[in-house]
Amino acid sequence: MSLFHRRIAALRERLSMAEPDTAWVISSENRRYLSGYSAKDSTITESSGCLLINKDNCFLVTDSRYTIQARNEAEDFDIKTIDKNMLEGLGGIVTMMGTKNLGFEEKHLTWGVYRDISAILSKASEPVSLSPLNCMIEDMREIKDEHEIHAIETSAVMISEVMDAVVDDLEPGMSEKEIAWKIQCMIHDSGADGLAFPPIVASGSNSALPHAVPTDRKIESHEPVVLDIGLEFEGYCSDITRTVFLQDPTPEFGKIYRTVRQAQLRAIEGIKPGMSTDTADSLARDIINDAGYGDFFKHALGHGVGLAVHERPRLGVTGPVVIKEGMVFTVEPGIYIPGLGGVRLEEMVLINTDGARILTRANSFYDF
Amino acid sequence: MSLFHRRIAALRERLSMAEPDTAWVISSENRRYLSGYSAKDSTITESSGCLLINKDNCFLVTDSRYTIQARNEAEDFDIKTIDKNMLEGLGGIVTMMGTKNLGFEEKHLTWGVYRDISAILSKASEPVSLSPLNCMIEDMREIKDEHEIHAIETSAVMISEVMDAVVDDLEPGMSEKEIAWKIQCMIHDSGADGLAFPPIVASGSNSALPHAVPTDRKIESHEPVVLDIGLEFEGYCSDITRTVFLQDPTPEFGKIYRTVRQAQLRAIEGIKPGMSTDTADSLARDIINDAGYGDFFKHALGHGVGLAVHERPRLGVTGPVVIKEGMVFTVEPGIYIPGLGGVRLEEMVLINTDGARILTRANSFYDF
Repeated sequence: MSLFHRRIAALRERLSMAEPDTAWVISSENRRYLSGYSAKDSTITESSGCLLINKDNCFLVTDSRYTIQARNEAEDFDIKTIDKNMLEGLGGIVTMMGTKNLGFEEKHLTWGVYRDISAILSKASEPVSLSPLNCMIEDMREIKDEHEIHAIETSAVMISEVMDAVVDDLEPGMSEKEIAWKIQCMIHDSGADGLAFPPIVASGSNSALPHAVPTDRKIESHEPVVLDIGLEFEGYCSDITRTVFLQDPTPEFGKIYRTVRQAQLRAIEGIKPGMSTDTADSLARDIINDAGYGDFFKHALGHGVGLAVHERPRLGVTGPVVIKEGMVFTVEPGIYIPGLGGVRLEEMVLINTDGARILTRANSFYDF
Repeated sequence: MSLFHRRIAALRERLSMAEPDTAWVISSENRRYLSGYSAKDSTITESSGCLLINKDNCFLVTDSRYTIQARNEAEDFDIKTIDKNMLEGLGGIVTMMGTKNLGFEEKHLTWGVYRDISAILSKASEPVSLSPLNCMIEDMREIKDEHEIHAIETSAVMISEVMDAVVDDLEPGMSEKEIAWKIQCMIHDSGADGLAFPPIVASGSNSALPHAVPTDRKIESHEPVVLDIGLEFEGYCSDITRTVFLQDPTPEFGKIYRTVRQAQLRAIEGIKPGMSTDTADSLARDIINDAGYGDFFKHALGHGVGLAVHERPRLGVTGPVVIKEGMVFTVEPGIYIPGLGGVRLEEMVLINTDGARILTRANSFYDF
């Protein structure tokens, strides 16, 4: 049974126990996961197609710009090309499939498209109702299969090599933007499909912003430089962060660095399958709290990584789920002092029987 | 009155005539248009904030990752930072503003967030209803003001220079991917903020795909190479397409090229303010039909360009609107022969009193 056959079978099993009888898949990651179709959507209002899957059929519905790519990539799917009105055409196929209840991705479908497809389906001879899929496919993606683990591990090794190379090249006086561009070039040269996200290069006081955008600021020797970078390989993302000091940091930043590193190691060593994500988060958070920096670590400890760079599970204080074998997520504590600067360290780990195995392999750690 | 004051005043005037009394603005382009806040959202499920605007107040609501950037950029707005539950916090501010009917962007708000905010607002002491803004802000953005025209024109000139340089550098044997990377480097070196979209480089039979993704295919001398590229400057996009032949094309492609170019020139010369977009589309389409290629020009003639690379108006056979002074859009006829190849030529034009002024300035046309 092929990779996609297995995934489609698993989706059908979930559908058989849910309200919808047909899954309407519009998000590019979910499309790729189920079909291999790798087209991306440039914006929320522009689609390169969708899947319709029920117990009997697998359709990939797109327009003529994408027909050839769809045929080449999604071998298990019947490709339907619609050129005039996409939603009307979609409505026709849904009706033809005998759908009674169409399941949609509630985190991706816009209110406007929901309104329009509802109007179309309500006019069908046999009216079709709509229900959210309740993250059915995102749930499936939480546990990675062998194929995925191989791609993610390759992606993680590739980004680790980029990280080591960029850290080696850093010199005082380079601007954040220059470094970010160098990283882009290195990621390109690595043979990656592309960036997983725009590189974060944040120096000095900018490093206090977890989502800093690179500026013209020139990096200096005694200050923290946060590098948070990721690439995509065969559709799978990687994500790694190091905080670099070109010379020894101030005692304050030495302490912050040690605290973040200790929190990260404690979490990576302590995480086991069966543990709750909020417990995992607290392994690191307790150490940061105890060091007196609790108010300066406001984000979650980590997030799943796969076809999307941010996906399930989320490791935070809210919305706990159980950690399971086959999950891949980041462990990335940070301490951010407004106006002064910050330190974040991020690894990707794979959960196996014994615990968390680190997938990223960059060195670039300090023993301050 | 500042740029943003003027735009906010115009929005308030529209709100005063519409059902909602408060606009809830989540799309990054609409946020930037009204406030100057330039943060982007990496995915549909991750937000860097939103605006809430009614007759008395302008709030920018975000989380601590973005507070400093918001304060620096959105001077006319009160910045509200919410760290725990964003939607609950948002609900509190909406209630505090005395909102009776909250207007949302129906093409950007997901069904899931609509459901969640509805539940929160229905529990408020004075219940708040929700209505779509019906593209109120996108409508405003259709007519560009002087500031925007200046930025768009600069963006168009910058991308034209990149186009001329890349065309000069093309040689047989270069792969589509190599050329696409060269374009990325040139756009970076031009001083642009970044790409408006990933470059399209499509050679030989690949050029029959209007949305081709660059491959390892090496370009050859007698075949069409479609280059469709764009950059962003101060938030404003540019978009240009040329089709290059390194040596004279076959008689068939010579004829196709002449037809596309003639269709483009006819449209650019004929478009006037007051004309309907479908009439504009038919100026070009009639020439392609008359040459016998009508079945091979399936997309619309053009699209608006501004803070988004694809925005209003759309110039196609359906959904006509009246062309007005201050609109900026592309004129991009194409002919695509499956399996053989295609030709597309794209310029950006600005509509003024007399007609369409071309903003892109690349040469790279042929007189076959």
